[in-house]
Amino acid sequence: MELWFTEKQTEHFGITARIKQTLHTEQTEFQKLDMIETVEFGNMLVLDGMVMTTKKDEFVYHEMVAHVPLFTHPNPENVLVVGGGDGGVIREILKHPSVKKATLVEIDGKVIEYSKKYLPEIAGELDNPRVEVIVGDGFMHIAQAENEYDVIMVDSTEPVGPAVNLFTKGFYAGIAKALKEDGLFVAQTDNPWFKADLIRSVQRDVKEIFPIVKLYTANIPTYPSGMWTFTLGSKKYDPLKVEDSRFHEIDTKYYTKELHKAAFVLPRFVEELTK
Amino acid sequence: MELWFTEKQTEHFGITARIKQTLHTEQTEFQKLDMIETVEFGNMLVLDGMVMTTKKDEFVYHEMVAHVPLFTHPNPENVLVVGGGDGGVIREILKHPSVKKATLVEIDGKVIEYSKKYLPEIAGELDNPRVEVIVGDGFMHIAQAENEYDVIMVDSTEPVGPAVNLFTKGFYAGIAKALKEDGLFVAQTDNPWFKADLIRSVQRDVKEIFPIVKLYTANIPTYPSGMWTFTLGSKKYDPLKVEDSRFHEIDTKYYTKELHKAAFVLPRFVEELTK
Repeated sequence: MELWFTEKQTEHFGITARIKQTLHTEQTEFQKLDMIETVEFGNMLVLDGMVMTTKKDEFVYHEMVAHVPLFTHPNPENVLVVGGGDGGVIREILKHPSVKKATLVEIDGKVIEYSKKYLPEIAGELDNPRVEVIVGDGFMHIAQAENEYDVIMVDSTEPVGPAVNLFTKGFYAGIAKALKEDGLFVAQTDNPWFKADLIRSVQRDVKEIFPIVKLYTANIPTYPSGMWTFTLGSKKYDPLKVEDSRFHEIDTKYYTKELHKAAFVLPRFVEELTK
Repeated sequence: MELWFTEKQTEHFGITARIKQTLHTEQTEFQKLDMIETVEFGNMLVLDGMVMTTKKDEFVYHEMVAHVPLFTHPNPENVLVVGGGDGGVIREILKHPSVKKATLVEIDGKVIEYSKKYLPEIAGELDNPRVEVIVGDGFMHIAQAENEYDVIMVDSTEPVGPAVNLFTKGFYAGIAKALKEDGLFVAQTDNPWFKADLIRSVQRDVKEIFPIVKLYTANIPTYPSGMWTFTLGSKKYDPLKVEDSRFHEIDTKYYTKELHKAAFVLPRFVEELTK
């Protein structure tokens, strides 16, 4: 018998992956959580039927969320991750020696628990002493913070279920308040093929709050369309004006200092979404 | 009843698309040809079970195959397309006023016939007077040509079935002979996630023949991994040294002159394949 997991990425299109076994399945307080072992991508975390991360391709997302803003800021010391319970963004953040503290606020403790168990290569740094893990509501955490963080990364699910608040203008205003006066943030903002309206509306909202707003992309094979976008909002530092001397050597499989800038060069139809 | 077409892009991973109807299905002399109407991507040409092109995302591949080499060459007049019976690359080539003649050599006349019928937006320029369409073997056509073309584009299927010869060193040597002394070529070379060995071997072969060899990428949602690579081999002109004044205005949805250069900036794991 062959078992295949299919994610309908849109109503009419999806990906399908052969699986060896289901490692864990559970309806948590917030969402349906499945951990499956696929043949092609290794262990895969699925939330509400959507692929969140896989052993084989996780490095792209985690490197590109973390290193673009961290190299844009000249001296990031205090960093916040909203979501990201698998720990991949935290692992990448810790590669920056300037970072004294990384705080993770994940709403669903089960994501942390099962990522540690089945995705140890990703979650392995969650117990690092430079990391504080908070199981709680990222939206509320942001609302209560003021002038605190150098960099904030929003590593959320799609804007359905628990993450719906994380795509609102009120949330971006909260981020601005939670950041220091020269802070910046990045949020995953889905793909331009099936979610053009989302990208457009986030761009519009963030531009009303941050003076510097840019979109960049990365190729993630298990995400819809294979092209993922990230929206960066910054109070002071421009990701395209980072001087070469600022980049230190870093162990990556996707990110390079050349790609840091090239990732912001958009296909024409994507560029149109930012106007 | 819902009908879904699934392409196994690897033995253990694939995409699946809901279809409204099958428009045509036939075993041609060379391959299985299916033309289907999908809900998400519109009409889709499938050869031997592999998605070749779709109405919705075809512009990426066709623009990126055509415009990168055509803007690299200062005055392309005589251009050859090997494969590409759907006509999309021809359509893009004709946007360059310098091109006096574009020759298409497609082995399977049925691809041309059914693309004209069901993908007229793509195939519509095949009857343009600047175009000569030859139904024949591209490998043999190349072998018989000498010092003839400014630019050659290899728009083939994967290296299975009729296209297997088009991924050999002998073919690249033939291309070098068929090109003028300052000519260049580009070939589609699959994706870095599942076909790393193919990219590596093409790079190795082409580097033995051409002094300038570069790899660039584009995002194509219906192709495996969403990240497609193109290998460019050139006798004289470097695609990264095109002066800004060389780019004329062109009607595109993906290609821009900025992306022309950014597309060559590779993720680290892809860059490794070119070394």
